[in-house]
Amino acid sequence: MKAKFISLEGIEGSGKSSNIGAINSFMELRKFNFINTREPGASLLGKKLREILLNVDTKISPEVEMLLMLADRKDHVETIIKPSLLDDIWVISDRYMDSTIAYQGGGREIDIEKIIANSKLLNLPEPSLTLLFDLPVITALNRAKLRGRLDRFEKEPLDFHQRIRDAYLDLSRQFPKRIKIIDSSKAPEEVKAQVLAVLNDEFKV
Amino acid sequence: MKAKFISLEGIEGSGKSSNIGAINSFMELRKFNFINTREPGASLLGKKLREILLNVDTKISPEVEMLLMLADRKDHVETIIKPSLLDDIWVISDRYMDSTIAYQGGGREIDIEKIIANSKLLNLPEPSLTLLFDLPVITALNRAKLRGRLDRFEKEPLDFHQRIRDAYLDLSRQFPKRIKIIDSSKAPEEVKAQVLAVLNDEFKV
Repeated sequence: MKAKFISLEGIEGSGKSSNIGAINSFMELRKFNFINTREPGASLLGKKLREILLNVDTKISPEVEMLLMLADRKDHVETIIKPSLLDDIWVISDRYMDSTIAYQGGGREIDIEKIIANSKLLNLPEPSLTLLFDLPVITALNRAKLRGRLDRFEKEPLDFHQRIRDAYLDLSRQFPKRIKIIDSSKAPEEVKAQVLAVLNDEFKV
Repeated sequence: MKAKFISLEGIEGSGKSSNIGAINSFMELRKFNFINTREPGASLLGKKLREILLNVDTKISPEVEMLLMLADRKDHVETIIKPSLLDDIWVISDRYMDSTIAYQGGGREIDIEKIIANSKLLNLPEPSLTLLFDLPVITALNRAKLRGRLDRFEKEPLDFHQRIRDAYLDLSRQFPKRIKIIDSSKAPEEVKAQVLAVLNDEFKV
């Protein structure tokens, strides 16, 4: 099977990272070459931008935040995602373009049409599959807090995260073929089972 | 007179900085409050982006470069330009939006319509006056070399700078009311006289 591009999405503490192991096991079982990557901050430039973007002392407007996220994404696509896919390596990215729509659109309330217009000018590839880890905001934030010091996004108030969750759910209704919802309010083993069921279904032998 | 926004444009070594003194004298003579600022790198975020953008070791695509320039500009506008104008302080910026069209459009050959479309989404104020310091590329680059170590843009080949000059001249034909050409191939005193003549003419007592 030709290498595909998979993105993982969800609010803070939604369990994306906890399920990367299960996704990687699937890739290994199927003998696919793959890489795990993330946004923001996978490329050399991205690492510098990530520092700025997640630092709680950074004071920037939603539009500037969006432009930095897009710069990170374009560099990520050019230096990591596209070259990997061309080399027949599967790409599993923790966050991608839906994050900008959910966070800067939903969360920061930038007009979503503007974000889409800006993105379109950049010729970004679309993932074949997006796993959306969904659960109530309050549960997710409690989990995020257990991980330790909160970053600039995690520190935002509850309604910010609620708007992000809503924007993600809107996206999943708009792109039901690409975006598959994982109910991550369930127990870890059950969440993992859902993830594997989606992968097995999407990438049948 | 209400405070205005003036931008200085031109290729590397075109004499923008050498003439800031003359512009400042004009402002002082007229008892205008003013600030000198620049792109990229005036705001707190901008300083970090300028380091990335001018560093000769930075490897980024034209589109990523454009996004970082736009992020710097949006932050510059929000944190310095707009607040100053609201406070009735004149703003004199060494480079602004014409630089992105000339450098990333002309120089790096990104479709200029794309740059304009991206910029439009950002609601950026237009300068009241732009002084375009124009002279043959070879003369300008020889001057830039005398200043010492070259940055990532200055190090580009002659035809890159030629495309930038051409793009600037195209812009001046497109916006003849806003963009005034200063022939900076002349002797310093003569260039200064041209600058003062334009300022006196544009901002009559």
